[in-house]
Amino acid sequence: MKLIYLVSGPTGRTPQGRAEMARRREFLNRHASQGVEVDITDIPSGPASIESLYEEYLSIPETAKRAHELEQDGWDGILLGCYGDPGLDALRELVSIPVIGAGEATSLMAASLGHRFSIITVTDSVVYMLEKMVRNVGVGEKLASVRTVDISVMDLHKDREQAIEITVEEGRKAIKEDRADSLIVGCMSMGFLEIAEAAQAELGVPFLNPARVQLKFMEAMIGSGLSHSKRAYMTPPKMANGDAKSPADLYHVKN
Amino acid sequence: MKLIYLVSGPTGRTPQGRAEMARRREFLNRHASQGVEVDITDIPSGPASIESLYEEYLSIPETAKRAHELEQDGWDGILLGCYGDPGLDALRELVSIPVIGAGEATSLMAASLGHRFSIITVTDSVVYMLEKMVRNVGVGEKLASVRTVDISVMDLHKDREQAIEITVEEGRKAIKEDRADSLIVGCMSMGFLEIAEAAQAELGVPFLNPARVQLKFMEAMIGSGLSHSKRAYMTPPKMANGDAKSPADLYHVKN
Amino acid sequence: MKLIYLVSGPTGRTPQGRAEMARRREFLNRHASQGVEVDITDIPSGPASIESLYEEYLSIPETAKRAHELEQDGWDGILLGCYGDPGLDALRELVSIPVIGAGEATSLMAASLGHRFSIITVTDSVVYMLEKMVRNVGVGEKLASVRTVDISVMDLHKDREQAIEITVEEGRKAIKEDRADSLIVGCMSMGFLEIAEAAQAELGVPFLNPARVQLKFMEAMIGSGLSHSKRAYMTPPKMANGDAKSPADLYHVKN
Amino acid sequence: MKLIYLVSGPTGRTPQGRAEMARRREFLNRHASQGVEVDITDIPSGPASIESLYEEYLSIPETAKRAHELEQDGWDGILLGCYGDPGLDALRELVSIPVIGAGEATSLMAASLGHRFSIITVTDSVVYMLEKMVRNVGVGEKLASVRTVDISVMDLHKDREQAIEITVEEGRKAIKEDRADSLIVGCMSMGFLEIAEAAQAELGVPFLNPARVQLKFMEAMIGSGLSHSKRAYMTPPKMANGDAKSPADLYHVKN
Amino acid sequence: MKLIYLVSGPTGRTPQGRAEMARRREFLNRHASQGVEVDITDIPSGPASIESLYEEYLSIPETAKRAHELEQDGWDGILLGCYGDPGLDALRELVSIPVIGAGEATSLMAASLGHRFSIITVTDSVVYMLEKMVRNVGVGEKLASVRTVDISVMDLHKDREQAIEITVEEGRKAIKEDRADSLIVGCMSMGFLEIAEAAQAELGVPFLNPARVQLKFMEAMIGSGLSHSKRAYMTPPKMANGDAKSPADLYHVKN
Amino acid sequence: MKLIYLVSGPTGRTPQGRAEMARRREFLNRHASQGVEVDITDIPSGPASIESLYEEYLSIPETAKRAHELEQDGWDGILLGCYGDPGLDALRELVSIPVIGAGEATSLMAASLGHRFSIITVTDSVVYMLEKMVRNVGVGEKLASVRTVDISVMDLHKDREQAIEITVEEGRKAIKEDRADSLIVGCMSMGFLEIAEAAQAELGVPFLNPARVQLKFMEAMIGSGLSHSKRAYMTPPKMANGDAKSPADLYHVKN
Repeated sequence: MKLIYLVSGPTGRTPQGRAEMARRREFLNRHASQGVEVDITDIPSGPASIESLYEEYLSIPETAKRAHELEQDGWDGILLGCYGDPGLDALRELVSIPVIGAGEATSLMAASLGHRFSIITVTDSVVYMLEKMVRNVGVGEKLASVRTVDISVMDLHKDREQAIEITVEEGRKAIKEDRADSLIVGCMSMGFLEIAEAAQAELGVPFLNPARVQLKFMEAMIGSGLSHSKRAYMTPPKMANGDAKSPADLYHVKN
Repeated sequence: MKLIYLVSGPTGRTPQGRAEMARRREFLNRHASQGVEVDITDIPSGPASIESLYEEYLSIPETAKRAHELEQDGWDGILLGCYGDPGLDALRELVSIPVIGAGEATSLMAASLGHRFSIITVTDSVVYMLEKMVRNVGVGEKLASVRTVDISVMDLHKDREQAIEITVEEGRKAIKEDRADSLIVGCMSMGFLEIAEAAQAELGVPFLNPARVQLKFMEAMIGSGLSHSKRAYMTPPKMANGDAKSPADLYHVKN
Repeated sequence: MKLIYLVSGPTGRTPQGRAEMARRREFLNRHASQGVEVDITDIPSGPASIESLYEEYLSIPETAKRAHELEQDGWDGILLGCYGDPGLDALRELVSIPVIGAGEATSLMAASLGHRFSIITVTDSVVYMLEKMVRNVGVGEKLASVRTVDISVMDLHKDREQAIEITVEEGRKAIKEDRADSLIVGCMSMGFLEIAEAAQAELGVPFLNPARVQLKFMEAMIGSGLSHSKRAYMTPPKMANGDAKSPADLYHVKN
Repeated sequence: MKLIYLVSGPTGRTPQGRAEMARRREFLNRHASQGVEVDITDIPSGPASIESLYEEYLSIPETAKRAHELEQDGWDGILLGCYGDPGLDALRELVSIPVIGAGEATSLMAASLGHRFSIITVTDSVVYMLEKMVRNVGVGEKLASVRTVDISVMDLHKDREQAIEITVEEGRKAIKEDRADSLIVGCMSMGFLEIAEAAQAELGVPFLNPARVQLKFMEAMIGSGLSHSKRAYMTPPKMANGDAKSPADLYHVKN
Repeated sequence: MKLIYLVSGPTGRTPQGRAEMARRREFLNRHASQGVEVDITDIPSGPASIESLYEEYLSIPETAKRAHELEQDGWDGILLGCYGDPGLDALRELVSIPVIGAGEATSLMAASLGHRFSIITVTDSVVYMLEKMVRNVGVGEKLASVRTVDISVMDLHKDREQAIEITVEEGRKAIKEDRADSLIVGCMSMGFLEIAEAAQAELGVPFLNPARVQLKFMEAMIGSGLSHSKRAYMTPPKMANGDAKSPADLYHVKN
Repeated sequence: MKLIYLVSGPTGRTPQGRAEMARRREFLNRHASQGVEVDITDIPSGPASIESLYEEYLSIPETAKRAHELEQDGWDGILLGCYGDPGLDALRELVSIPVIGAGEATSLMAASLGHRFSIITVTDSVVYMLEKMVRNVGVGEKLASVRTVDISVMDLHKDREQAIEITVEEGRKAIKEDRADSLIVGCMSMGFLEIAEAAQAELGVPFLNPARVQLKFMEAMIGSGLSHSKRAYMTPPKMANGDAKSPADLYHVKN
């Protein structure tokens, strides 16, 4: 099984970005099951990080186009590399191989682990985005709350210890005040920093790392011989009827 | 009051497109209240029409950037020119002036007109998109059904009579089988062809033309001295803290 | 467009009441669009103010009968003059011209402005009434809370400054504790005192004045060529089949 | 235990009406438990029958005032004599003794009998009214459908056999097409004609007669030492603070 | 009418247990209507008390088998003697006579008494169980909260005064913080200790004693000539087709 | 990773049963990932098959006790071997290792594959049981329908071809009439007969085999380093405080 982790931003344009991508590839392969290989790729242009709905939308056209290419290249499944699952439905319109979002996978897994879960994410500006995502996944009634550490994505790496500390604090409030019995780290950067693992020890409830859960959910879907329904995520009509040969043909430039 | 109707595609790149835009401007000004002027604009590049979630996402980055410019240019409100309200939330993040979606405006107006409404739209490929839109607007429990005429957006203009005929037929089924008491035309092209007006006479229930309702809803919002909540639609943090001067600064190209 | 604001109580029986009605007419005409005229009327008997469900019901029979007369008199639309929308559904059964409730119009407009709204109203005795109204409108899932200033309708005019102060305080709690991103003044008397406008400046979120929003929503509905569905609000069978010539014929006195 | 059945119309003004009221009293006493007596009364003026929301509202002011008198007269509980429970909440504001609606009692009892219930009522004009009633009771998710025999209240007595036949037919459709496992007769006149009992034998599912269930639910509430919560149904403030001595004081006539 | 209260545990195996059962029989007969007799029985083996889902399930097989025997013995109705209604649906599969659960009966009665109710029960370990029960009954939207006195079932009898005191305290919080307008004692042992009656005097809202409400709800169901729907609670197929003669035949022991 | 599939019935008491268990073990090991071993076990006594809620409850006490032993024996995870997930919550109270239900796992996986799913199961007598299970899992809003092949569990093996044929037929109706875009086989016996795989080819939508999906969901949960929350599924208090040493101590026999 060959999986590709698709970062929905041009992360590989800086040396640090490339190093981070290498680190993520290593993490994913370390957690992959026997017989599963994971590579990582990004998109040529897009937002530096996603902290608003606008930046979420900015990432989608190139990410979707890249997903279509990746299917042509023979990958078995695509891990969408942003917690809010930007454009997940569009990617599924363009391809037949499984595409898994980290937000979706963790929400569904959390629904199995307990009765109410909370998400600890970065900033206030994405709270509504994540609430909407969980509702669209279909488990909105199990969402206890979305809480934030109030650190921007770019600053997370500067002080991992502080991020863990605040995550533990907010997790504690989620359990006590919002009656959460399970917690999710709602940001891939927080995920790859293994903040969930560090916090779980202190909090005594399951704390989901999206980077791991997404990978495992993908292995489960492929292992079950399944992919998303093309009746639910229909191929765009212009591609289905042959008017467009590829996603790029659906985009026009004004003369 | 000066309003701008923002087509979320590069419609003005062909002579027919420009003619259609002129026709829409005329329609809007004809229905505008005294003291209200409406102009129309489009985006330099984007999808030719929107019949999938992928095409919806393709339209958003340029439309949002254009919305930001239009606010700088001094317009009082922006009419988002696509029924599914693509990127409406992102546009509201970028501007403070009112932005109204036709899907949202008609869903809310229909909730006032009766107990259950149905949407008659173009093709199966957008049904889920519209169901999701209505749910996000908050009136999902009043949605009786989404039905289709099964004609592509591009083909609608070729045979208006046929489009009316099928719309009447599907509207009748919506009333009888789905217990709808009000109907909405779920496509701007169908709206500007005044299909709702033609069908309403035969069906005896309110039939909402999104092109009119959206305009009037905007007049009502501005007339009430209101615009969307910036606590609900926060300015992207990188713009709020000055790191980005404009929406374009949030987009990076990989070297 | 000629609109009539129908006070659902015998307000015009005292000199102060008549003065207040004149003030409201002036307010409405000041905010009406060009080409729109608004007059005001009341009912011969009914409750002095509405602070309970019982008083709400007391107001309906005469208000509904009056609405039927107003349609005969040639008005284009009826603005129901009480925030809780008492008998709105019955009025729509009796007439074909649009009837708009302030509760309904503000709830729907607020659903467009943000994700969660709170209503600030007079007393505890109407909280459930307003919650039920919002649920029936269909946007119950967006209602964050109903809060009260704990001042009776009759006392509001005695100290406008105090009413504003408490409204600001409760609005602040609604934003912080209930996560509201938009606010509504839930009482027509508070509305015509322009408490929302005064409070909005301090709170930084949209604050809807029902007196303005109701008027504008009516202009939008008529401007869209629409009125409520008679399949949703059926004419009473005894009137539809001619057994009763007018609403009064449906009422009998025991001998 | 002394109960009073309060007809929400001036039924006793005609000889036939008085005979029907005597018949109902006899029915209720026949089904009352040992030690329970039931008398019947009506209101001096109101609608002849209730087949619209307008007629529902017409009945409430006099019915509520009468309820208040009945409490003064020492009755132990009031059975509101119209299936749609018109003004039930207002009656509860005015009195402390239990008031039970037939719509409410049957909906709650049906929720115990199975998973989904349907209501068979008179005409299309009351369907929405009953759907709203069930939703407000709190068991809306168990309502399978509201179906009609399409016979007016006044005509029901003319051909009981036909009413039973159509009720059986619609009940069968409710079971097969709407997946109902229990049925309710949604009209007091149908109830006192014992249509449910006749139909139940043919359909093999519980068929609730509102006239019996309402009585028994009242006996259960009083037998449990309970009455409605005055925090939920608050006394109108003007009565609570002594400004009004009785419900009549809340009603004013314009000079 | 002859009713049997079925304790879902082997309570009668100790002298104290037998005394408690006698006390309960006396309580039930004291509150029964004229003409109604209640006896009490238990099961030969099962959990000592129910404070977890596991213990709930432990009680069901013997309780269900006993219910089947009780129907054979000619009882008119079965009162299931545990607040969480363990196996209520299974008992209804096995018998045709009414079976009433105390959780179900109080939830439905509370839905009639007000808008929001809270349950005060024993320990944290049953909170989710009771939330699930209320949701399955169909009135989940009216549940304000489940609160606990944090005393085990076995310890309740040791200090009734303390149990009342904490119940009043939690009831007060439920009213103020959770906006409950009615309260339910969520444990049969608390019920038979008449804690609700003691607490109601101090709290001023209806406080339901499950031991009384369950009995009265049963009288109401039988008095209405009703029992649960066998389309909703189907007889197990192997019994319906004669393969099994009794519930015991459905259970096999591995050789 | 060592997993144990726990049949919730005494299947191994007959030669055919033992053969079927061997077949299932082979199936599970064939689909297990590298490094994962699966063994199978059953319980000493219980129902022959589960086609009613009563039989579901019959299976739980022994299954739960066995689960507790299996954790002591060092297994890494327990696959609960009945589609309706009988007692899943109780098993989780008793153990800390992951326990996965096939109903839960397929419902959550289906929520990722599309917008609406249908379950094809054996007989009418389990339809409500499965609807309740899906609702409790938290994805009830995505359930399109539960349909049946009307063949008893015991008869499924007699004519696999017929079972496939009817499954395809019902699946087609689910897609067309209920708008399902994904399907689930709602019975483990149907699952191990690989009916989903056979039907999927003809229907063109994902068809989930619970036997595979449950296994893969377990691998995903363990692979993510997770198990259910003990705050959600609390250890029974009597075991937590040491009064009971094992689940068996919670069960008493009447002398």
